[in-house]
Amino acid sequence: MAVEKLSESERETWLSALESWELARDGDAIYRKFEFTDFSEAWGFMSRVALLADAQDHHPEWSNVYNTVEITLTTHDADGLSLRDMKMAKAIDAL
Amino acid sequence: MAVEKLSESERETWLSALESWELARDGDAIYRKFEFTDFSEAWGFMSRVALLADAQDHHPEWSNVYNTVEITLTTHDADGLSLRDMKMAKAIDAL
Repeated sequence: MAVEKLSESERETWLSALESWELARDGDAIYRKFEFTDFSEAWGFMSRVALLADAQDHHPEWSNVYNTVEITLTTHDADGLSLRDMKMAKAIDAL
Repeated sequence: MAVEKLSESERETWLSALESWELARDGDAIYRKFEFTDFSEAWGFMSRVALLADAQDHHPEWSNVYNTVEITLTTHDADGLSLRDMKMAKAIDAL
């Protein structure tokens, strides 16, 4: 299923509404780094993001090193950023 | 607590015993890529690795993109590979 890529102005509007996410990959992705107290707390966060990912059928590209979690969101079907990424970022921020 | 770094011969002995792990970072880490059917299966695997990591108090540097999981093991306290990494790799292979 093709997904529509956001226009530049839509992208900017969403970005200014989101906390602490920045553009990555020449504007085709958004990125945020999270820091926690320890691995246990980071893992708890990741588990909640995994549940979100499954519910939204939209999966992050992410990495974890002990207490840090780095998340990149992009939509391969849109060849860039779509509404799905922004909704996912918003939902992650709400955790 | 300082952890002893493996000698080159110890490293080679362990590597030949482990399946599908390769040296990374100039011999200071080991790396393996895992592929699964989908995100759900990859996440199930990661959850089991997280439990191992907590039990062994040794945490991987890892990333996930949908059905793939990439794991790098190294021991910062040893400034390279220690027995901990090899035991962790062996336990991951046993999952």
